[in-house]
Amino acid sequence: MDIIVPGHGSGGKLMNDLINHLIKSTLGNETIQLDDAAHLKLTTSSIAFTTDSYTITPIEFTGGTIGSLAVNGTVNDLSVMGATPQYISCALILEEGLEIETLKRILVSMEEAALKAGVAIVTGDTKVVQKGKGDRIYINTAGIGVFTNPLQRREIKPGDTIIINGSIGDHGTTIMALRNNLTFSKGLSSDCAALNHLIEDVIRHYPEAIKFMRDATRGGVASVLNEITKNAPFGAKLIEDNLPEKDEVRGVADILGIDPLYIANEGKVVIIADRSHAEGIVEIMKKHPEGKDACIIGHITEEFSGKTYIQTKIGGKRILPVLIEEQLPRIC
Amino acid sequence: MDIIVPGHGSGGKLMNDLINHLIKSTLGNETIQLDDAAHLKLTTSSIAFTTDSYTITPIEFTGGTIGSLAVNGTVNDLSVMGATPQYISCALILEEGLEIETLKRILVSMEEAALKAGVAIVTGDTKVVQKGKGDRIYINTAGIGVFTNPLQRREIKPGDTIIINGSIGDHGTTIMALRNNLTFSKGLSSDCAALNHLIEDVIRHYPEAIKFMRDATRGGVASVLNEITKNAPFGAKLIEDNLPEKDEVRGVADILGIDPLYIANEGKVVIIADRSHAEGIVEIMKKHPEGKDACIIGHITEEFSGKTYIQTKIGGKRILPVLIEEQLPRIC
Repeated sequence: MDIIVPGHGSGGKLMNDLINHLIKSTLGNETIQLDDAAHLKLTTSSIAFTTDSYTITPIEFTGGTIGSLAVNGTVNDLSVMGATPQYISCALILEEGLEIETLKRILVSMEEAALKAGVAIVTGDTKVVQKGKGDRIYINTAGIGVFTNPLQRREIKPGDTIIINGSIGDHGTTIMALRNNLTFSKGLSSDCAALNHLIEDVIRHYPEAIKFMRDATRGGVASVLNEITKNAPFGAKLIEDNLPEKDEVRGVADILGIDPLYIANEGKVVIIADRSHAEGIVEIMKKHPEGKDACIIGHITEEFSGKTYIQTKIGGKRILPVLIEEQLPRIC
Repeated sequence: MDIIVPGHGSGGKLMNDLINHLIKSTLGNETIQLDDAAHLKLTTSSIAFTTDSYTITPIEFTGGTIGSLAVNGTVNDLSVMGATPQYISCALILEEGLEIETLKRILVSMEEAALKAGVAIVTGDTKVVQKGKGDRIYINTAGIGVFTNPLQRREIKPGDTIIINGSIGDHGTTIMALRNNLTFSKGLSSDCAALNHLIEDVIRHYPEAIKFMRDATRGGVASVLNEITKNAPFGAKLIEDNLPEKDEVRGVADILGIDPLYIANEGKVVIIADRSHAEGIVEIMKKHPEGKDACIIGHITEEFSGKTYIQTKIGGKRILPVLIEEQLPRIC
């Protein structure tokens, strides 16, 4: 049996074999049982809870798979709240016909991502849908993180600094290039990564300086900033000269006519911080592999309040509008 | 705009409008913000964590929708562990072309189910897939429950009693009848219901007597018992005369050649309890609407160890084998 058949979702022996011999044995670890529901002990009763479904196509790409993406995305959603990610669930929707070998590679990449992030996959579910009612595999991961030292809410003010941990648009551009068979783009790779260690390090060193953190996924860096500036008494100014962009990303984005500021990232966090500690935060980030290209990309301003805008290389200013239509479906 | 389009999953304005004006306004409550991740305070640090994706077709049926099913299923998974369900996540995978009105009805049924069960839907996610890559709507719900008075693990022994809270096979039979256009089956209705109040009441009265609890979903009552008896030093005997079955269910099951013991339920819990308190447990169950037809359906035995079997109406005994193949895909 080397493909998924409807019986793998039946509640019978086929399903039990799949779960026990492939899923549990790949994802399980020695201390925690992957069962219908997991019984967990937390170190605190103040928690963060999040969920995301992943429907990306293709399901395997340079720099990751739908499995590592699902783990890292949920880890990052918890981390940007200031929580320490601990437990992840894994719910699979498998399309009839998916090769078991492919499923195995994806599960292995999930487990590797979980180990790297230091989280445990503790509970799961498997459903099978008929051919043509899915797209090989969809994965939902929910996650629980604990607040050991919760971040205080601090008011964003003109003068605050906008920081990112590295180059923008890598994930979405990699996926677009794959889908469009842009073969010259061999240097492209998704930035898919867990940011919890980097973020925890920043919080540990500068707990007072951080005003806002968000991972810049769907809609990219511009959409994260637009969410903050919407109806706000301040604007967000990006400085084009400072934006870290890889040449390959810029090249593909130009061909496709898309602005990298709106392209999804899967390993990038935007931080708004007090100006006096901005350089220190960048230095901390640079000590982590996921932050080696960290830099300051802009500031919170009094002008253009309610808007996100960019100061271009030639010195002009341009509003970055709220994204309305789809740039690229199923990027995550 | 009255159907789902790709832009509803883009991270832009269309998605924000859908989330704010339909999803949050339907599912949200006043105290808890439905955001990327929720910050929650628990009453204890000992928790249960579970996840399930729901891919049922049809998405609306007599007695429920994919939405109420998703809430009740996750509530029940937590309840049978002895946990008190508190928080639910809601991740939607919407197929392009789904009518917004249908989505709204499903969200309303989720919120009604959550209110009835006393749980809060606190975090969510929305993805859109192209036409032909899904089946209108798939929903994942993860859930967190707290252990206030955790159930102790107690050894199942010959002489223990097998109890159920009502008629078997209602959910799966309703779905099969709908799919097969069996129009004579108008009396059929899914048993889709949250069992947390009933289960908590049983635990409160008989904390020492309960040895095992499980909701009998995919694979039905027979599969729950087969899971317990597999490699065990005891057998599980069901008494056919005692099995609560509705006439309509028996009729449809006979036509389709399926045994109701293997048909999915969505509001039934199987309890194995010390014989001395079995009648008391049944009495408690009967006080709840979800338990009005509760009864004893069998016993744990020394004979046929490792097997689940049935004593038929004519006095014979028949093994109920482990289900191997699919009876009905996408029943939940």
